[in-house]
Amino acid sequence: MSDKIIIFDTTLRDGEQCPGATMTLEEKLEVADLLDEMGVDVIEAGFPIASNGDFEAVSLIAERVGNAVVAGLSRAAPGDIDRAGEAVKGASRPRIHTFISTSPVHMKYKLQKTAEQVHEMVVAQVTRARNLVDDVEWSCEDGTRTEHDFLCRCVESAIKAGATTINIPDTVGYCIPEEYFDLIKMVRERVPASDKAVFSVHCHNDLGLAVANSIAGVQAGARQIECTINGIGERAGNAALEEIVMALKTRGDVLPFDTGIETTMLTRASKLVSAVTSFPVQYNKAVVGRNAFAHESGIHQDGMLKHTETYEIMTPESVGLSKTNLVMGKHSGRNAFRDKLQQLGYELSDNQLNDAFQRFKDLADSKKEVFDEDIEALVDENIATAQDRMKVLSLLVVAGTMGPQVATLSLDIDGEHKTVQASGNGPVDATFNAVQALVPHEAALELYQVHAVTEGTDAQAEVTVRLGADGTSVTGRAAHPDTLVASSKAYLTALNKLINRRDRLHPQAAE
Amino acid sequence: MSDKIIIFDTTLRDGEQCPGATMTLEEKLEVADLLDEMGVDVIEAGFPIASNGDFEAVSLIAERVGNAVVAGLSRAAPGDIDRAGEAVKGASRPRIHTFISTSPVHMKYKLQKTAEQVHEMVVAQVTRARNLVDDVEWSCEDGTRTEHDFLCRCVESAIKAGATTINIPDTVGYCIPEEYFDLIKMVRERVPASDKAVFSVHCHNDLGLAVANSIAGVQAGARQIECTINGIGERAGNAALEEIVMALKTRGDVLPFDTGIETTMLTRASKLVSAVTSFPVQYNKAVVGRNAFAHESGIHQDGMLKHTETYEIMTPESVGLSKTNLVMGKHSGRNAFRDKLQQLGYELSDNQLNDAFQRFKDLADSKKEVFDEDIEALVDENIATAQDRMKVLSLLVVAGTMGPQVATLSLDIDGEHKTVQASGNGPVDATFNAVQALVPHEAALELYQVHAVTEGTDAQAEVTVRLGADGTSVTGRAAHPDTLVASSKAYLTALNKLINRRDRLHPQAAE
Repeated sequence: MSDKIIIFDTTLRDGEQCPGATMTLEEKLEVADLLDEMGVDVIEAGFPIASNGDFEAVSLIAERVGNAVVAGLSRAAPGDIDRAGEAVKGASRPRIHTFISTSPVHMKYKLQKTAEQVHEMVVAQVTRARNLVDDVEWSCEDGTRTEHDFLCRCVESAIKAGATTINIPDTVGYCIPEEYFDLIKMVRERVPASDKAVFSVHCHNDLGLAVANSIAGVQAGARQIECTINGIGERAGNAALEEIVMALKTRGDVLPFDTGIETTMLTRASKLVSAVTSFPVQYNKAVVGRNAFAHESGIHQDGMLKHTETYEIMTPESVGLSKTNLVMGKHSGRNAFRDKLQQLGYELSDNQLNDAFQRFKDLADSKKEVFDEDIEALVDENIATAQDRMKVLSLLVVAGTMGPQVATLSLDIDGEHKTVQASGNGPVDATFNAVQALVPHEAALELYQVHAVTEGTDAQAEVTVRLGADGTSVTGRAAHPDTLVASSKAYLTALNKLINRRDRLHPQAAE
Repeated sequence: MSDKIIIFDTTLRDGEQCPGATMTLEEKLEVADLLDEMGVDVIEAGFPIASNGDFEAVSLIAERVGNAVVAGLSRAAPGDIDRAGEAVKGASRPRIHTFISTSPVHMKYKLQKTAEQVHEMVVAQVTRARNLVDDVEWSCEDGTRTEHDFLCRCVESAIKAGATTINIPDTVGYCIPEEYFDLIKMVRERVPASDKAVFSVHCHNDLGLAVANSIAGVQAGARQIECTINGIGERAGNAALEEIVMALKTRGDVLPFDTGIETTMLTRASKLVSAVTSFPVQYNKAVVGRNAFAHESGIHQDGMLKHTETYEIMTPESVGLSKTNLVMGKHSGRNAFRDKLQQLGYELSDNQLNDAFQRFKDLADSKKEVFDEDIEALVDENIATAQDRMKVLSLLVVAGTMGPQVATLSLDIDGEHKTVQASGNGPVDATFNAVQALVPHEAALELYQVHAVTEGTDAQAEVTVRLGADGTSVTGRAAHPDTLVASSKAYLTALNKLINRRDRLHPQAAE
């Protein structure tokens, strides 16, 4: 048997079908292009009968995709199949993926058909699809809860009728790996012409086992895995493409299979799908979560600094990330702390380091995130005073429908009082323009974020401003019931820090 | 062997150790209380030597927890062990969990010790811990990459020295289930006194296999599972407690094991941990994600309406959710659409339904989320016009450090122009107070959210306002470069919708 695993991506079908993940046509085309470039073998582009928009998306994707097979989904009804055939016909390698439920509970309650009737529909649906395209995939929905004799009979008939791929989905995410292994093996052994078709796995993650089940299916002889970017999909989602691909790649020693996926594009794909669906990727998500390659604990950081293999079984570069992130926090050890200080331009004696490290630990106990500037403040007494160089004395903003919005700002700069009036496109823009007018600078605004500290419209607003310059960045935060006042103070705090750091790292520039 | 699985929760140790997840003392106590109430058998409360805050947290948790064993982590150093012992001594059931690396790569690079030296440290660390408490757990860090003979030798010595629990962690998340099964089985068979200790599994999720590996370990004879709420932890996190527990419960037929967890508290635990860490739970997260029990696709919704078992292997009630969510979107079918209309107070003829359903499909193609009021607007012509009953004519807001902030608002209400001036605690509060003064109402503000549509401080701000009254809620949205103008418009849109719905559902109230 071949060791090549066909990666069938259904982000645009099963993924898009989950509540809230609906994508626009343009977004779907962008995702399809990326999947194709990444080396996905089959792109399931949608469910053409579901809506006119779905039909259009599948048609357009079929026409533009250069490498991958493009599949359209259909139920067993003739109209569904024809619509799917029409949608994919522009593809260089079109596939119709047609399915029907075969489990007792689905046949009885959802289809309201007998097993005999369903079996007839299987033959009819595959035959009809095969008359439209050469590449036909047939799925027995709820396959893992289907009675074995009936499952084998349907699979046999589907292959006879011309199905080239047989998918046995775990629709409800019910299996454990050994069961799924046994099921795929049983079907392949019992169905006479099973070698005429590629077997496929499609696992849902309701019990957290989708990736393990997919791998078990491959070990039992399946050669196609259906999966989605970030594991999105109905309910708890599908097996995550990036986890499947990296598991096969990382454990090639015990899983001797190949996918054609360019793994360095996984991070990009994850970010794109997260952006177009607005579905956050949880920080601890395997492979693509923001913490997947981050190490905070002292023990882990220490090990990583000594030898990356101590805690890393795959490199961040292999999935398209630039480098492993050592985040400073209360679990960080002395070695990581010294490393960070050196980056920030400080060389401390051992005694000074011990002392600073203790203060760092105390600070980290009480603070969720320790920023670079917090560490600077710990070891550099000049910073605390320097941060008082510029202060907000007063701010008056006039906003509303009449525009332009105008801000009048007074600052204390090194003891001197200065006032300016500036307008802008909106009250925040006007306020920031006023700061810029009084403190000319070239730092870029990297982040502006408003966060309500308490509930209600009269909440304290906490504003975060991150400014970047010379490849480094600083964060200023301030809270005030008036968002605009908080904004001006946060901006100024960040500017104070930036100017102070620049003076220290490049003393000549300060003159 | 007993079928009881000991659930060892390490949310407060391995979970809290991941970058950004640091919790305050109060937050830790709250989590510990919930874990104890939920029936967790062992709470690993922290790593006492790591910082004074960690020590304090472990001590306080030890004193207050009534049912669970409270464990403190320590490395092999005598000072570490003593500190852990001191931290847990107030517990009614204290445990010291002491570990050391046993894999070649960890011993060589991280510990810089020979295997012989490490073996001596194992005996010494367990002996020392056992002199402090009766309940001692020993872990061989990076156990799954440890040479087998050496692993068995260390385990044997640890048991002889008094360890009552032996944990074999997959520290780097490297194993596949059959390997982990074989490893646990091998150690239990080869180590002479293995029946004197409980074997434990601790799996990381780097390849998406943590839950499957944990279950494989139990099948091989382990009786303790180390896991965290939401699966948080170093890098890709630990096995998720809620997935482990629900897998064992749902598949009791093939996994005949019991946990003492009150599963109806899982959702609450997930929300609490997400709130205190600010780590979002991804929508498709198994068991506790917001989509875990949501069904959008027409096929699934249709099946669910006919018989819940068609797509649900566990009930939302079993994990503490109130009911399954049928979300309306473009994949929704006719039956679900009719159901929703009935809920909203509309009875349509078949022809009207067909027509409205087609318009609903077109709308859903172009809109990410279809709200109840969108569906109302589809079937009820009065709504479009009614939404124009109240309009913003002008708004002027004066804000800044001088306070109170003042808003002057003019509205067109049923053709009549009305103006009012109101103050508030911040500019948004002042604006909303002005709306309230012109349109007195009792709706509660359920959500106020500002979202930047484009980048930069001059971005279009998109404001979302959700108002609730009489058990129903409506959403208003508006975009404007001036956040305050967008806020007033979004608020008014929501109010328009609310008044219109009330008039329709309770015509008598309108009089």
